Amino acid sequence: MSANPEQESTKEKGTWLTYRPEIKVHDCTIRDGGLMNDHRFDDAVVRAVYDCCVAAGVDYLELGYKNSKRQFSKDDFGPWKFCDEEDLRRIVGDNPTDLKLSVMADAEKSDYKEDILPADESVLDMVRVATYIHQIPIAIDMINDAHEKGYEVTVNLMAVSTVHESDLDEGLQVLAQTPVSTIYVVDSFGAFYSEEVQSLTKKYMDACAGTGKQVGIHAHNNQQLAYANTIESIVLGANRLDATFSGLGRGAGNCPLELLVGFLHNPRYRLRPILDCIEKYIEPLRETMQWGFDLSYMLTGLLNQHPRAAMAYLDKPKDQRESIVSFYDAVTEQV
Amino acid sequence: MSANPEQESTKEKGTWLTYRPEIKVHDCTIRDGGLMNDHRFDDAVVRAVYDCCVAAGVDYLELGYKNSKRQFSKDDFGPWKFCDEEDLRRIVGDNPTDLKLSVMADAEKSDYKEDILPADESVLDMVRVATYIHQIPIAIDMINDAHEKGYEVTVNLMAVSTVHESDLDEGLQVLAQTPVSTIYVVDSFGAFYSEEVQSLTKKYMDACAGTGKQVGIHAHNNQQLAYANTIESIVLGANRLDATFSGLGRGAGNCPLELLVGFLHNPRYRLRPILDCIEKYIEPLRETMQWGFDLSYMLTGLLNQHPRAAMAYLDKPKDQRESIVSFYDAVTEQV
Repeated sequence: MSANPEQESTKEKGTWLTYRPEIKVHDCTIRDGGLMNDHRFDDAVVRAVYDCCVAAGVDYLELGYKNSKRQFSKDDFGPWKFCDEEDLRRIVGDNPTDLKLSVMADAEKSDYKEDILPADESVLDMVRVATYIHQIPIAIDMINDAHEKGYEVTVNLMAVSTVHESDLDEGLQVLAQTPVSTIYVVDSFGAFYSEEVQSLTKKYMDACAGTGKQVGIHAHNNQQLAYANTIESIVLGANRLDATFSGLGRGAGNCPLELLVGFLHNPRYRLRPILDCIEKYIEPLRETMQWGFDLSYMLTGLLNQHPRAAMAYLDKPKDQRESIVSFYDAVTEQV
Repeated sequence: MSANPEQESTKEKGTWLTYRPEIKVHDCTIRDGGLMNDHRFDDAVVRAVYDCCVAAGVDYLELGYKNSKRQFSKDDFGPWKFCDEEDLRRIVGDNPTDLKLSVMADAEKSDYKEDILPADESVLDMVRVATYIHQIPIAIDMINDAHEKGYEVTVNLMAVSTVHESDLDEGLQVLAQTPVSTIYVVDSFGAFYSEEVQSLTKKYMDACAGTGKQVGIHAHNNQQLAYANTIESIVLGANRLDATFSGLGRGAGNCPLELLVGFLHNPRYRLRPILDCIEKYIEPLRETMQWGFDLSYMLTGLLNQHPRAAMAYLDKPKDQRESIVSFYDAVTEQV
């Protein structure tokens, strides 16, 4: 990695008492949490998250998806599945702050050519392309499109826990030649232990060596390791860190922002406003939304499966669910 | 560590796909959880935990404390603060199983000379002495007493996150000369990050080198790192692992047994009965007991404080608590 001066600096982080100024924290609460409520959040919640990210010194805020209105109806989903410019501006105005705003665009689910405006007509700063390994050719077209429109572009390569290592190596080689600023290690199924996060972070750092690109980490909490795995990735050089308020996100949720900010010891970040926002706006969502650690998510994570079986299990009212042992028997049969 | 053949074998655990047969899992649900309900558990719960530990292949079960009846009244506390032989036998009979049974004896809180019977008159197999650094002289007397009575003896050196390193080194040197089988790395305040757990595990391994003693780990979950830190300690050679069902334990709780057994990949352990016990006996306790991650425990952990401020905060009914920001202001002033 010696060819990359930006990555060289990661070696400066010796212990937990120091901090690495290159690190950027990316809040994904509304984007990832939207998967649990069909992207319907009250404006008051979205505005509180925005205001809090500004107050807490968070670097990026991801507000939702740029999903296709031909594939998904605005009747069935809230505004944060589409992130129309007018919806964004209703919350953030012209965003006269240092906080950068991003959206996620999924390969094969986005009419990106039409729906993503030129950057100088949008309040958005960054487009994150999400792709499975077999969609990389489409993802590259999306990356180039957003880059040419003037955005910072990053990429989430999803579900790598099910990808053969040689395919992953090839995919990373291809992505390293695109204009993305960051390639994220993504633990879609919450299946990774520290050893795997270490080995993937090293692999991604190697793929980015000499390109000036950063490595990011996006963890899920199925095995209560989202925060711990984020730390592992930081120690090995990841500088772009995804987190959410109270870990709000799909299934078992994500790395909790409050824990991450506590760890970073960077005076740019402030924990106090985050605590306030969680108490007033995020925890009350538990009345209507379910997220966070559960034995069912633990089992899909342990088995390296998509969490959909657990989500279906938890969707049933508590008194109508089968026993957790029956769930265990069912998911272990599907391995 | 080459002088210690037992520890040499720890190097065999290369990846998460293999397992280390020397590892022993120690369930502490009733003992540590008892701190949250004055040691009052229904016999049905204690029996379910015992039966489940047998069925799941757990190695040790810690049923409670040997606390002084002169200092603590049996009117104020349930039986698991005292672990009288008749209470133990009401649950486990003569324990005709491979599961070993233990109790904890706190320095300065135990009438150990009278209350701990000779091992051949008791159903107990192991006594764990808990001591703060300044109590080590008493602890050594307790260790010798239990050892001479015929027990396996282990020691928890508590609150080491607040102990000067030179004092800790000296304390470990002294404990390494006692007949304990295991010295535990104990994260009493849930304050440790992986780097600190790594460095302490190494230190304890060095102190035990050549003595045949094992290193154990007892973690708390204030920063959602109890399980992750247990893994870190395993990787560096800890062979004695504390865990509890659903993480039930003081404050933010402990390393969840269900996660640990999922990780160990040792065919001796079985996850299915653990899931069943959690659903039927442990999760229903949440109606009357509070444990697990909370922002207040996160803050005391982050600040390396005893969790008592958070416990007092959570003891108030929800509508009478101050805001979490006021709690933050109060605990950060006390640093």
